[in-house]
Amino acid sequence: MRILVLGGDGYLGWPTALHLSRRGHDVGIVDNCVRRQYDHEMGVDSLVPILQLHQRVRLWRDVSGLNIDTYVGDLTDAPFVDEVFDRFEPEAIVHFAEQRSAPYSMIDRRHAVYTQVNNVVGTLNLIYAIAEHDPSIHLVKLGTMGEYGTPNIDIEEGFIEITHKGRTDVLPYPKQPGSFYHLSKVHDSHNIQFACRIWGLRATDLNQGVVYGQETDETSLDPGLATRFDYDGVFGTVLNRFCVQAVVGHPLTVYGKGGQTRGFLDIRDTLACVELAVTNPADKGEFRVFNQFTESFSVRQLADMVADAYPGRVEIEHLEDPRVEKEEHYYRAAHTKLLDLGLVPHLLGGPTLRSVLAVADRHRDRIDPAAIGATVEWRRTASRLLTAEPVLD
Amino acid sequence: MRILVLGGDGYLGWPTALHLSRRGHDVGIVDNCVRRQYDHEMGVDSLVPILQLHQRVRLWRDVSGLNIDTYVGDLTDAPFVDEVFDRFEPEAIVHFAEQRSAPYSMIDRRHAVYTQVNNVVGTLNLIYAIAEHDPSIHLVKLGTMGEYGTPNIDIEEGFIEITHKGRTDVLPYPKQPGSFYHLSKVHDSHNIQFACRIWGLRATDLNQGVVYGQETDETSLDPGLATRFDYDGVFGTVLNRFCVQAVVGHPLTVYGKGGQTRGFLDIRDTLACVELAVTNPADKGEFRVFNQFTESFSVRQLADMVADAYPGRVEIEHLEDPRVEKEEHYYRAAHTKLLDLGLVPHLLGGPTLRSVLAVADRHRDRIDPAAIGATVEWRRTASRLLTAEPVLD
Repeated sequence: MRILVLGGDGYLGWPTALHLSRRGHDVGIVDNCVRRQYDHEMGVDSLVPILQLHQRVRLWRDVSGLNIDTYVGDLTDAPFVDEVFDRFEPEAIVHFAEQRSAPYSMIDRRHAVYTQVNNVVGTLNLIYAIAEHDPSIHLVKLGTMGEYGTPNIDIEEGFIEITHKGRTDVLPYPKQPGSFYHLSKVHDSHNIQFACRIWGLRATDLNQGVVYGQETDETSLDPGLATRFDYDGVFGTVLNRFCVQAVVGHPLTVYGKGGQTRGFLDIRDTLACVELAVTNPADKGEFRVFNQFTESFSVRQLADMVADAYPGRVEIEHLEDPRVEKEEHYYRAAHTKLLDLGLVPHLLGGPTLRSVLAVADRHRDRIDPAAIGATVEWRRTASRLLTAEPVLD
Repeated sequence: MRILVLGGDGYLGWPTALHLSRRGHDVGIVDNCVRRQYDHEMGVDSLVPILQLHQRVRLWRDVSGLNIDTYVGDLTDAPFVDEVFDRFEPEAIVHFAEQRSAPYSMIDRRHAVYTQVNNVVGTLNLIYAIAEHDPSIHLVKLGTMGEYGTPNIDIEEGFIEITHKGRTDVLPYPKQPGSFYHLSKVHDSHNIQFACRIWGLRATDLNQGVVYGQETDETSLDPGLATRFDYDGVFGTVLNRFCVQAVVGHPLTVYGKGGQTRGFLDIRDTLACVELAVTNPADKGEFRVFNQFTESFSVRQLADMVADAYPGRVEIEHLEDPRVEKEEHYYRAAHTKLLDLGLVPHLLGGPTLRSVLAVADRHRDRIDPAAIGATVEWRRTASRLLTAEPVLD
């Protein structure tokens, strides 16, 4: 199948592109490489060194004998999107190409506006291009479990049957997103669902949990094929961050009580889920939603697991929560649709934790302690970061 | 009270500004006058002649002795928004300043992107300005009943109590908007609700029905105070359009079966509802939703009412529905919160219908038959309008 991976230079996009390439698909990568620009802006860097996009694609050809087309440009540039469609003629599109950090979107007004315009306009251009070039192209879009928030009832996969005053309907699951980034994903979901309805597009919205891990079967073939690993306060996700903190002897920083519970998954399961979605496409006109995670943990549980897995001494520190969120809450979310398609999860345990700790340990000389602490405060309209950028406030 | 009316040069913004001014409030108008630019783009014009913003504000001073400050600029221009806040120091803000036509948003990709960026970024800039200048400023935001779509259960006012698998929560009412314009309003609602939660803002979302009528107590004081009256296929709303069609002997054009049922209200009730919302503000941190309409009608019912009220012969023509919507459906929507605050509705009957018909008749020499037919097709990604604009498709 001819598959375009949008955002194919990123943490998950790159290993997904390699995985689909190795599985026999013709893969094209679209990326504007702006994720690397965010590093310059924030004064941080991937813990694991990564090659340039063109270099890593060349290396993949050398290692695997497989070619990946690359298109460097921006989805908010509609003529560029049209040109890519004309040249690559995709049958499926995997869309990772969005600003994906909640704290980044909460830095200040400018970053909130950037995040929503970038994500919403890029996706609008994409659905118009699909409708105009070939409505049968299957859009596989990365959403987030964070779209749902933490309701006091069970979270379902995209839709919920509601009986109200004696009548019943199946309606979109109500959304309570927790940052301007999460909001942008909710906006996308509404826009895509509408496009499926009016133009008969086919789309799968993957509401993904928090991903951990850094190594996949393909990236492990050569150090130059490594994907990025973020541990900073803005782009780092919680388990990867905890492993870096453990390795440098920094207390694991838990926000508030640490009762915040979320869905999690192994990076290798992200690749498997995307492949399952692509090879089992949605029907014409169908907008379907899969909750893409394998296990739920509270932040406090994760901290304890990392502390247990690390051979040295690890302290846990409770900081005032910079986000506005419930620190203890009900959380139960359905996630059976990908299992029904055949997903066999990698569950979180000692071996996986030790492998992530090993990644952090291998690159410990590259760890910048200032980056660990940098954070963004939800209650302020402009946060002063601890890193190099002079944020105006 | 010091009240800013954003979009105060428009169909509803202008009479709202006059009404609040006459009721003793200090009123400021913010508008970029882009609504007038859409007329140039589409090759259409308000049926009732209207003065320039600066002229009509001067005339209001002459007629009433009351001053209205005017700020001409764009909400997507954040420094402009800050300057207006610094100079006017509002206590409440009534926000009409969005692209408000569903067909306009569906013309093509460019108009869809314009509508969502204009509406979402303008509102983001506004909520940041409120949070930074004075979080106690009450935001009264115009939403639309079209955010809900046509679910098969009763529509509630913004929130619904859901019992699911033995647990209960009150959650945002699920939204199924029917155009990229309606989607932009859903995006706004999610963004504003989040701002209330994290910054403690106070906001009222007025999910308004379709407005009819053109004359209010204040605009009637002088012909130069008139507000606009749109009858074209892009900006005209259904009842006003039917009255114009009746006057020129054009069949009333009903889309499909005409069973599409919506909430409606008189323009004078819009003014009363906004005033009720402003004078009974939301609490700190509260995001409340009022459904702002007084009666529900199907399109077919409205056509019959106009035909009955018009002294001459009126035909009704059923066209293929250019929109993607249900032509027959359940529709029952709650609208008690504004009644509880004291709204006394002007219901639709012979006198109101005859007054709208009289407006159309008075200006019949200005009616452009080409504008009546111009329409936009939801199923196409680029519509060729019947008017002057050469739309590329």
